Amino acid sequence: MPKLNSLQKKLPLTVKKERDAVVLVNQLLLPGALKFIRLTTYHEAIKAIKKMNVRGAQAIGATGAGGIFLASLEYRGSDVRKMISFLRQAGRQIMKARPTARNLAWGVEQMLKIAQGANVKIIRQKIDRAYQDLLQSEVKNNLLIGKYGASLIKDGDHIETHCNAGSLSAIWFGTATAPMYTAHLEGKKIKVLVDETRPWFQGSRLTAWEMSRANIPYHINIDSANAFLMSHKMVDLIIVGADRITKNGDTANKIGTCALAMVAKNYNIPFYVAAVSATIDFSLNSGKEIRIEDRDDEEVIADVSYWHKSVAPKDAKAYNPVFDVTPAKFISGIITEYGILKPSEIKGLEKKIRREEKGNLVL
Amino acid sequence: MPKLNSLQKKLPLTVKKERDAVVLVNQLLLPGALKFIRLTTYHEAIKAIKKMNVRGAQAIGATGAGGIFLASLEYRGSDVRKMISFLRQAGRQIMKARPTARNLAWGVEQMLKIAQGANVKIIRQKIDRAYQDLLQSEVKNNLLIGKYGASLIKDGDHIETHCNAGSLSAIWFGTATAPMYTAHLEGKKIKVLVDETRPWFQGSRLTAWEMSRANIPYHINIDSANAFLMSHKMVDLIIVGADRITKNGDTANKIGTCALAMVAKNYNIPFYVAAVSATIDFSLNSGKEIRIEDRDDEEVIADVSYWHKSVAPKDAKAYNPVFDVTPAKFISGIITEYGILKPSEIKGLEKKIRREEKGNLVL
Repeated sequence: MPKLNSLQKKLPLTVKKERDAVVLVNQLLLPGALKFIRLTTYHEAIKAIKKMNVRGAQAIGATGAGGIFLASLEYRGSDVRKMISFLRQAGRQIMKARPTARNLAWGVEQMLKIAQGANVKIIRQKIDRAYQDLLQSEVKNNLLIGKYGASLIKDGDHIETHCNAGSLSAIWFGTATAPMYTAHLEGKKIKVLVDETRPWFQGSRLTAWEMSRANIPYHINIDSANAFLMSHKMVDLIIVGADRITKNGDTANKIGTCALAMVAKNYNIPFYVAAVSATIDFSLNSGKEIRIEDRDDEEVIADVSYWHKSVAPKDAKAYNPVFDVTPAKFISGIITEYGILKPSEIKGLEKKIRREEKGNLVL
Repeated sequence: MPKLNSLQKKLPLTVKKERDAVVLVNQLLLPGALKFIRLTTYHEAIKAIKKMNVRGAQAIGATGAGGIFLASLEYRGSDVRKMISFLRQAGRQIMKARPTARNLAWGVEQMLKIAQGANVKIIRQKIDRAYQDLLQSEVKNNLLIGKYGASLIKDGDHIETHCNAGSLSAIWFGTATAPMYTAHLEGKKIKVLVDETRPWFQGSRLTAWEMSRANIPYHINIDSANAFLMSHKMVDLIIVGADRITKNGDTANKIGTCALAMVAKNYNIPFYVAAVSATIDFSLNSGKEIRIEDRDDEEVIADVSYWHKSVAPKDAKAYNPVFDVTPAKFISGIITEYGILKPSEIKGLEKKIRREEKGNLVL
């Protein structure tokens, strides 16, 4: 892809490693302003995740891993065992910042498992290098998702997506957006239908911003317009991201994804999930075991704002589950760095990944 | 129902006839303030409908009929034919104010068809009485919908609804809410799950306000949380309103209704439409013939307001269809003043209504 450079100029790295810091795009300020947050402690990493300065499965995972990298710099002593114990307790705290995205625990685990060595300095160096590698390898994975996913996209296609599984949700290039960016760079004329994604408007705020930056034509729609759009043949393909995928292919993603998949099934519109393998939780057999985060009522009520003010009655309460689980039977395929898999093929990936990791250890 | 009085104190008449005016609840100010608009010309009626000071199929229909009543007062001459021609052109203009709700044309037609008589004064009196009758008879119809619909509700039921097909969408008591109010007055403990209903938040603003006034427990949820709520067995029954029902039972209603019905089908949750027969358009065979109103992009984009400001990129465009059509096969039943009908029974209602109307004419 000759024009990848051009996209690099338009879309910043969402999570970036510096010598002694992790720098994040402050997603709470988009699309109004593109500003960055510099983290220097693992507590700051936890805060950025909790407050949603950073969100999106891969970006959260990379920030969580970054928290361990920062903790390795924060440890002042020279005792290897104490250092590892310090890193582990940091890891436990980081993993609790948000419960649903598998990538958060994965990111922390990736760092902790290489945290061993003869002395503190060596461990620190290993973590530094491993963190650098993790960020790079995740971008490579997303480029692969782009390559595989773009094969599903025809010239002229209208692609609907929910929430933001874009470059901002990743380190760069995104998961659900990766096939769109690749198709766009290949010269295919596509249009993206952006679900606004209540209650946080990640679609209107973030995906729309990305499409605008990348010069990909897009339209925003309210989440529940999906049946109208599909019944009017305005959608050719749907690609969404994932926060956690279980062995049977069930997929937790932003609230509203499941309804979208069910509506798509009724209209026979292909519904794809795009995710790196780090999103797969091989310890869970099905989506029923996934813990779904329930956030504050206020996110739904107080920002119900027509004319920019709260409009629900003062005594209003709200249900605010922020993810839902799409059963595997509604998913046409899962686009990963290993290719496009049927949901039923997900469990087979476990052995493959374990074998590769073993290979890496031998090297 | 001994406590109907108590509800009357809490919920105002949405459309009220005075001697020379039509008084509406100004729905744009709710839930912040309960204020009224006094219309004295049919142009004001058109404006109130277009600007959505009044919305909801029945309330729009009653306002449209009120427009003809006002036009009959506005006509200054003494020529019967000129008066009728004046009323007809007013009717044509009123019907164009919003395209989707069948009740608007119905309301205008009800007034125009009795607009005949020996002189202007007699016609004016006939219209005055007919308008009074229309308002009263619509409330009676809604009480019947309440009676029939409440038979579907068990003590302890959680009932989900979309948009506002409440008292505010009607003259009083509502359509989708009628079974809820009746069940509540009968002493059944119910809880209402209110879809916030983007982009105008009629759920959070209006249905929540009604439930709050009527002391019925409720929770607001984002529209696309429906699959989560149903998969967690938090919904026993769904009742929504309708803007236009075709002969085959297809139903146009607020955007998002169709997706809700499709999700409900997947979870085997009963999905009912509540509407007066005036909502049925016997001239249309199926929902494919219904014209769906497309409103301004701005309603979706500019009020995408987290922290009370617009957050979509400046160049953003949006699709903003404001209704969708739920195919009859997703509808468990249609609750009307004639009882609960299967969608396939709707077409049979035409003869019955024609017979009744003939009967009325003979009287």
